[in-house]
Amino acid sequence: MKIPRLTVITLGVRNLATATEFYRAVLSTTPNTTNEGVTFIELPGVWLSLFPVEELARDMACDISPVRNGFSGITLAHNARNKTEVIAIMDKARSAGATVLKEPQDTFWGGFGGYFSDPDGYIWEIVWGPMFEFTQQGDLKFKSTPP
Amino acid sequence: MKIPRLTVITLGVRNLATATEFYRAVLSTTPNTTNEGVTFIELPGVWLSLFPVEELARDMACDISPVRNGFSGITLAHNARNKTEVIAIMDKARSAGATVLKEPQDTFWGGFGGYFSDPDGYIWEIVWGPMFEFTQQGDLKFKSTPP
Repeated sequence: MKIPRLTVITLGVRNLATATEFYRAVLSTTPNTTNEGVTFIELPGVWLSLFPVEELARDMACDISPVRNGFSGITLAHNARNKTEVIAIMDKARSAGATVLKEPQDTFWGGFGGYFSDPDGYIWEIVWGPMFEFTQQGDLKFKSTPP
Repeated sequence: MKIPRLTVITLGVRNLATATEFYRAVLSTTPNTTNEGVTFIELPGVWLSLFPVEELARDMACDISPVRNGFSGITLAHNARNKTEVIAIMDKARSAGATVLKEPQDTFWGGFGGYFSDPDGYIWEIVWGPMFEFTQQGDLKFKSTPP
């Protein structure tokens, strides 16, 4: 049976060029900008898409304001292979213009991670945890034998 | 070379049990509730995680308010195989208590889709597009020969 899945996460951005450059730098991958007015970053597992926030609100429904206030309520996570990788990715994000909200540190659940926000205020958690491993395809999974 | 990827999307929710039941119904999959205080929905490609919004704000940084106002700025998409599947998923979401923001309809770019919001106001797009196909693993990809 097919399990439904997430295929694309769209971030409504204020400036498409700025956001595209930020993710090009942080993800070390080439965003697909061939479709005018939208950027697709074809990551394995799920794509990230960047789209002007006014157009995103308009596409959804007429009565949704594109004005964002405060915390979106959503965090996007990248699970790293180890603590060194967490630190390297946080440094790379900072160099690309991210605001570090929480420096990499031990977490209360035995992991190690930090948070940064992108130029539009969307929040990423970069984290490593001893209970996680990865499939051949790179998908996250719990270790069959807990640490 | 390893391409960084999204591994988990966390939605900060007001009521963990309500949100967990909603996604159990919509996704027809069994949420992993063995870790107290957090629900993991281990979808292929990227996990969805449900976590009380106050705790999420606290985990990130001390000065972020958990109060959400208006549009989060983010949409989560499920690309369906065809128009019939779009309609079926939208109906299933509605039955589970979703608010339909936009009934399934033709899009300006040649696709077919609609939007719903979950019990916390997070927005999903259910969509089909003639330019997309899927890999063996179920990842989204552009057709090599445009339609």
